[in-house]
Amino acid sequence: MSRTVIRNGLVVTASDETHADVLIEDGRIAALAGQGSAYAGSWTADDVLDATGRYVLPGGVDAHTHMDFPFGGTFSSDTFETGTRAAAWGGTTTIVDFAVQTRGYALREGLDKWHAKADAQCAIDYAFHMILSDVNDGTLKEMDLLVEEGITSFKLFMAYPGVVYSDDGQILRAMQRTAANGGLTMVHAENGIAIDVLVEQALAEGRTDPRHHGEVRKVLLESEATHRAIQLARVAGSPLYVVHVSADAAVAELAAARDKDLPVFGETCPQYLFLSTDNLAEPGFEGAKYVCSTPLRPHEHQSALWRGLRTNDLQVVSTDHCPFCFSGQKELGRGDFSKIPNGLPGVEHRMDLLHQAVLDGHISRRRWIELASAAPARMFGLYPKKGTLAPGSDADVVIYDPTAEQTLSAETHHMNVDYSVYEGKRVTGRVETVLSRGTRVLDCGTYVGRAGHGQYTPRGLCQYL
Amino acid sequence: MSRTVIRNGLVVTASDETHADVLIEDGRIAALAGQGSAYAGSWTADDVLDATGRYVLPGGVDAHTHMDFPFGGTFSSDTFETGTRAAAWGGTTTIVDFAVQTRGYALREGLDKWHAKADAQCAIDYAFHMILSDVNDGTLKEMDLLVEEGITSFKLFMAYPGVVYSDDGQILRAMQRTAANGGLTMVHAENGIAIDVLVEQALAEGRTDPRHHGEVRKVLLESEATHRAIQLARVAGSPLYVVHVSADAAVAELAAARDKDLPVFGETCPQYLFLSTDNLAEPGFEGAKYVCSTPLRPHEHQSALWRGLRTNDLQVVSTDHCPFCFSGQKELGRGDFSKIPNGLPGVEHRMDLLHQAVLDGHISRRRWIELASAAPARMFGLYPKKGTLAPGSDADVVIYDPTAEQTLSAETHHMNVDYSVYEGKRVTGRVETVLSRGTRVLDCGTYVGRAGHGQYTPRGLCQYL
Amino acid sequence: MSRTVIRNGLVVTASDETHADVLIEDGRIAALAGQGSAYAGSWTADDVLDATGRYVLPGGVDAHTHMDFPFGGTFSSDTFETGTRAAAWGGTTTIVDFAVQTRGYALREGLDKWHAKADAQCAIDYAFHMILSDVNDGTLKEMDLLVEEGITSFKLFMAYPGVVYSDDGQILRAMQRTAANGGLTMVHAENGIAIDVLVEQALAEGRTDPRHHGEVRKVLLESEATHRAIQLARVAGSPLYVVHVSADAAVAELAAARDKDLPVFGETCPQYLFLSTDNLAEPGFEGAKYVCSTPLRPHEHQSALWRGLRTNDLQVVSTDHCPFCFSGQKELGRGDFSKIPNGLPGVEHRMDLLHQAVLDGHISRRRWIELASAAPARMFGLYPKKGTLAPGSDADVVIYDPTAEQTLSAETHHMNVDYSVYEGKRVTGRVETVLSRGTRVLDCGTYVGRAGHGQYTPRGLCQYL
Amino acid sequence: MSRTVIRNGLVVTASDETHADVLIEDGRIAALAGQGSAYAGSWTADDVLDATGRYVLPGGVDAHTHMDFPFGGTFSSDTFETGTRAAAWGGTTTIVDFAVQTRGYALREGLDKWHAKADAQCAIDYAFHMILSDVNDGTLKEMDLLVEEGITSFKLFMAYPGVVYSDDGQILRAMQRTAANGGLTMVHAENGIAIDVLVEQALAEGRTDPRHHGEVRKVLLESEATHRAIQLARVAGSPLYVVHVSADAAVAELAAARDKDLPVFGETCPQYLFLSTDNLAEPGFEGAKYVCSTPLRPHEHQSALWRGLRTNDLQVVSTDHCPFCFSGQKELGRGDFSKIPNGLPGVEHRMDLLHQAVLDGHISRRRWIELASAAPARMFGLYPKKGTLAPGSDADVVIYDPTAEQTLSAETHHMNVDYSVYEGKRVTGRVETVLSRGTRVLDCGTYVGRAGHGQYTPRGLCQYL
Repeated sequence: MSRTVIRNGLVVTASDETHADVLIEDGRIAALAGQGSAYAGSWTADDVLDATGRYVLPGGVDAHTHMDFPFGGTFSSDTFETGTRAAAWGGTTTIVDFAVQTRGYALREGLDKWHAKADAQCAIDYAFHMILSDVNDGTLKEMDLLVEEGITSFKLFMAYPGVVYSDDGQILRAMQRTAANGGLTMVHAENGIAIDVLVEQALAEGRTDPRHHGEVRKVLLESEATHRAIQLARVAGSPLYVVHVSADAAVAELAAARDKDLPVFGETCPQYLFLSTDNLAEPGFEGAKYVCSTPLRPHEHQSALWRGLRTNDLQVVSTDHCPFCFSGQKELGRGDFSKIPNGLPGVEHRMDLLHQAVLDGHISRRRWIELASAAPARMFGLYPKKGTLAPGSDADVVIYDPTAEQTLSAETHHMNVDYSVYEGKRVTGRVETVLSRGTRVLDCGTYVGRAGHGQYTPRGLCQYL
Repeated sequence: MSRTVIRNGLVVTASDETHADVLIEDGRIAALAGQGSAYAGSWTADDVLDATGRYVLPGGVDAHTHMDFPFGGTFSSDTFETGTRAAAWGGTTTIVDFAVQTRGYALREGLDKWHAKADAQCAIDYAFHMILSDVNDGTLKEMDLLVEEGITSFKLFMAYPGVVYSDDGQILRAMQRTAANGGLTMVHAENGIAIDVLVEQALAEGRTDPRHHGEVRKVLLESEATHRAIQLARVAGSPLYVVHVSADAAVAELAAARDKDLPVFGETCPQYLFLSTDNLAEPGFEGAKYVCSTPLRPHEHQSALWRGLRTNDLQVVSTDHCPFCFSGQKELGRGDFSKIPNGLPGVEHRMDLLHQAVLDGHISRRRWIELASAAPARMFGLYPKKGTLAPGSDADVVIYDPTAEQTLSAETHHMNVDYSVYEGKRVTGRVETVLSRGTRVLDCGTYVGRAGHGQYTPRGLCQYL
Repeated sequence: MSRTVIRNGLVVTASDETHADVLIEDGRIAALAGQGSAYAGSWTADDVLDATGRYVLPGGVDAHTHMDFPFGGTFSSDTFETGTRAAAWGGTTTIVDFAVQTRGYALREGLDKWHAKADAQCAIDYAFHMILSDVNDGTLKEMDLLVEEGITSFKLFMAYPGVVYSDDGQILRAMQRTAANGGLTMVHAENGIAIDVLVEQALAEGRTDPRHHGEVRKVLLESEATHRAIQLARVAGSPLYVVHVSADAAVAELAAARDKDLPVFGETCPQYLFLSTDNLAEPGFEGAKYVCSTPLRPHEHQSALWRGLRTNDLQVVSTDHCPFCFSGQKELGRGDFSKIPNGLPGVEHRMDLLHQAVLDGHISRRRWIELASAAPARMFGLYPKKGTLAPGSDADVVIYDPTAEQTLSAETHHMNVDYSVYEGKRVTGRVETVLSRGTRVLDCGTYVGRAGHGQYTPRGLCQYL
Repeated sequence: MSRTVIRNGLVVTASDETHADVLIEDGRIAALAGQGSAYAGSWTADDVLDATGRYVLPGGVDAHTHMDFPFGGTFSSDTFETGTRAAAWGGTTTIVDFAVQTRGYALREGLDKWHAKADAQCAIDYAFHMILSDVNDGTLKEMDLLVEEGITSFKLFMAYPGVVYSDDGQILRAMQRTAANGGLTMVHAENGIAIDVLVEQALAEGRTDPRHHGEVRKVLLESEATHRAIQLARVAGSPLYVVHVSADAAVAELAAARDKDLPVFGETCPQYLFLSTDNLAEPGFEGAKYVCSTPLRPHEHQSALWRGLRTNDLQVVSTDHCPFCFSGQKELGRGDFSKIPNGLPGVEHRMDLLHQAVLDGHISRRRWIELASAAPARMFGLYPKKGTLAPGSDADVVIYDPTAEQTLSAETHHMNVDYSVYEGKRVTGRVETVLSRGTRVLDCGTYVGRAGHGQYTPRGLCQYL
């Protein structure tokens, strides 16, 4: 039996801040003991980490990543190997990635493909959501099977007609199914049918620059779709999770639903909290680096997002990590913003950016951990295995230096992409050491992990219901 | 020159209640004079009507009728001849009917067809809205031409996929066009795509009775579509008129929009104010008589509708008159509610039912006339030619006995349909005499009108903008 | 019998715009006839006014004036003679002024005093509201008597503790009384108890300039009191009229109440629509000219007020005319803003400023007349005697030149006050001729009225209930 | 050093449910260890409690009690000795009671009096809030001192004029002070001024029965005061805690404030969740047993309260324990409901009733502990000493049998009062053993505590800010 003790740190979870020593046995948390208690003093261990002046955190859970993801004729530039390694660098110890059904094929076929992509590649543990591209009698039946085997959440797109778009009838049927089988429906909420009209008009009028991506994907078309998804979920009697909320008016729709005590949840991402349409409007073709959907919004929306995170109208911060290199990938959309692959790199910086938000006064320290670890773990059926530090939990632990300073940059990041959307941004706080199930992946700033350490992790049902 | 004087009545318009005598010259209101004024006393006329103890009202304007309308393989049972005659009996002196574009054909082709149906048939004046079944470059261009010639409103369906349904992109494009050409977009706001899923499920489960028509067309799917239409109109920068609002939650969407000062308007119909799902659930196949879309709602919704009429969140009461005989028509849906032709008879009873609402304390006398005459006339560009009694207005006048009692019944009504949805209902108030452009159509309870008196009336733009 | 005809104008009322000639007999409107109708052509009259190119309007009704009003040890500088003359210059033909109960005395005593002030002094017709300074068994009984004799509205102050302040229990009792006797409760809605704490703190800290008047009378303390008054009215089952609404948040409270169909009404004033805290902050002691309560608000509030006027969440625009000369009166508050008499001159400019608002696109022409004439007349039981041009109405008529330009200034105004809050403001539109009960008061820009022409006018009950 | 181990239970806190063993050293939690971990197995202890099949809970924190409290000429019937003993029986290990300032005297004088009442009497730990009866320069200064010594919350009454009522100016000043010194303002939110008018009218009309207590204290007068308190807090820039929320409309005011991210908090009590105006209307004088303020409300309000507890618009469930014997105390109000002492017994049943709510599906098990222990501890600066089971926390522990059944009754309860408001109510779940700082107070259903074990506990600042 291997034993590790982490001494002298401040254990921060979603609910508590405790000066406690942490005992790890065989990859799990065995005990927490008050510093200075006689018992803690008596522990012996193979390995002792000193966390004096550091935070001891449950590892981050990033519930929205797209590794090796096909989009617009290319693939996102991080593989499961490179992407999970970057995640680990940033203090994330679990990702939930999206397996994709190919239209016309079974869900199983898509899931198998994603298992093959990830198998033996990951530095940290991983799980899957399933994207439905085609809701029909066959795929509805498969949903039940997937829930039983630990794929308990399903994403549907109200955008991207002709690609992964589902119409309201398909969404309703999928929601009815999750109402019955306990799964959670996730939606990308944008009125893609209306947006495509505006895209066509913009292009026809020569408005082809990246910033027009933001202009045609209007705030009202995000909030409308959000409202619609909520109503469809009410008709189906199912819960709903809205991914990558970026518009103030969409937050308002979620808040209104939650005031009614409806099981409606929302996620936002660091890019919506820290970036804006100003970035999309950067000169030349630079704006392409910031093209993602939902799009970045004007600055004013950020305060609504922060407020939503504080009032719990938004519960989760994920990254929607979906990187494309500027060179050769983003460039596919020169002269036609609609051909720019949609997505940004981000998996590495989420914990740090949210810690910066603590320092900036947007959220509390405990809320930081709730948004980044505990809530996504609960939402997607991984808690308390993941998302907290309690006896019995996996020993996914981050030792975090809250005073270290760093500058984010493509020069120094570990994601496989040739630019950073946060290039030059200075933040305070840095991940120092990372354990995954008790094993060091990052050790005082040195990567010591390996592809294949990370295990596939079947999930239970959403714990907010 | 012909002169008519109406003496001793109480002239009630949307804004005033005046003891005034009314002088008519050549089909128009020439003057109003205070009763007892020297001048009124001096008038001479060919024809003097005594309105002592009566109201003198501007004739009703019914902005939503479907004469000779194709639906589900049959046609509504009132022709323009029978339908406008019944309207006149009920104090309505103008209808705005819906011309229909056949999918794949020009708007013009549909409009010509409706002109042919109505020409020389009508007892009272009439105008047309245009239903778009197919939004494309050609029909968008035609919209501009129609606005110029007096067809200034266009209806789109969010329901009835595969028939007259338009998707959100088509609706957006049509709205953009009216934003430019001054027209008014009308929508039937129900999420037809989702409803069709529920219809299919209901039928598959043997829930085939008429009451299931009401159950599958859910309140949330009306309010959702109402919300969506409002947002699309905001994106387009266009006004919006929502037809036949029946659900409290849909009224709430309109109210929220109007609180924001958006140019959003709503209509309800007597059937939603006086009937309910109790009627749809009548035993046997009786419920089929009450099948219309949007459907009748539970009783509780009525108070929201009345409130909306008082707070001006709803502006117009029309009938959506679209009768089908029980025998041979409604019966098409025995064993399958989805095959019951959608629609009710109503054009004859609107003025009386709303007068009853005055007596019941729901609305004021002036609001009665506003809802039934002035507001629809203003909304659809007919004011002040129609909708009021002011110097220069058409002499469309109703002499109304507010104390007469009557019982509504298929035995006595004048609509060409074999049942009444208000069978046996007693109301107080009755139309006594009706003038259309100064000519008597109803004379003290005797019909003296003729097919062909009624003229096609091109319309101007909506006057609420 | 005297007869006057006004020919060739555009008659604009709250509901209609009609090219009609107007016949006046013995001080009342006898008839309106279509221009060009045979009958209009046949009229003969002693006096014919040509209104070609002009509007023919019902005279303005200013439902909120304070002539010869005691405040802070001085009196407002317009007497009923000078104030009503200025009103007439500005196209207002009726004022409703506030009689004041002296605390400890009967309402009757106060009313008699105000009758004495006004008797034989007024250029135009006038009526009274009653201010209650002391709600007790005696004054409650008197309210019933006053309603019967035509004083049908009663004002209570939630501000000015120790002066005219009523506590919530007193307000509730007065509201209960109007619920029973048909009267209308008006409130000055500011939390005066809280404001006085802030006033004391400001003065103690040396914040004594006029602009601090605006800062201590906080938006939240207006909206709070508005909310409270609404709830008290709900408990009492009475209607409510909130005077001089200036804050966006107060409009929101009214809108919320009206969405519930509560009989709650609101008034704003031109100063809140055209002026702002920028004026209060003018250098030196200039800001004192703009000290009134509720105070002027930051610019941003204006759009909420305009929106409220359009959505009918605000129904009336009055002036709250209460002028104090800068010299000798406003100066009482040098070094202590709390000693500046509260009030502004405005009775002369209301019609012109609202016409400018028509030109600026804030409101329609008909809404102009509704806000300035019809709605106050209806609200305070003067309609249709006042507020419209209909057969039987008093011939209070304004002939208005919509294209004339003028510059507002103390040099040229007719109010008895040594400054103008609109000094130098250019507006388009000007009153040309004014009739009061058929008699000219202003004739093509020449004042021809006389003190004593104006009659005291008892009022009926509020007509919105 | 004393050591206790609790083995085999399910540790339930506000955030986690863990199968963990708990080690207690010297009255504090020393460690939690996974059941079955090598380390837990190695523990030795003086004392081992077996919690197989039981929950292991942090002791309850009742943040609203009134022991030996003067009201209407009598005193609440529980002393600190009897009241805290009853609390312990019910699983509550900390109370925060209200010290009262006597008007005209210093806060200190009142606080000393309460210390004297409680000193050496309590079975469990206790702390104090301070009731301000008189806000003036002196008491404002004292507030700062009290905050420093651990009295960090101050209660003000918007009800009870002439007794403990504060006007809006006083409340504003007190709030400004807490904004500066970090304290928390608590308000009893009812418009007492208006209520007293209704009381007087009811009594004058012979409506003297207990049920009229509920009728005069109207829902709108609770929600109005709640709204007003929120606005005053916004003006002051201070947080706000509203005690004993009972009306749905008051919850709505809190929800609206919290949607704006304002630091506004609300508490409700079991009586509002489980009792209603039906109880107040019990025949004879039985209703007097249920007289408390805010009053019980009609049944329909309960669902709003439960929803508020789920949506976190209400954060705390306290008891407002303030018992008066029916005989001799409640009877003071025979023939005059206004003389019935306001208050109910409840301190003993809170944990059980909320556990029943878990079984009834209103709240989750973790939310139970959050509402009853963690949130009140955080709200009033006692966390993590109280309110959780974490290394370093006080070993206030409840071993709870979730399957035991019991019937609530005055026959068996331990509060010093001659009736139970829950007489005959059956609930599932019962406290078995209670530790206070590691010492047994209740041992398998036998009381083993003693007066004087309980310690006065100074508090820190509210932790939600």
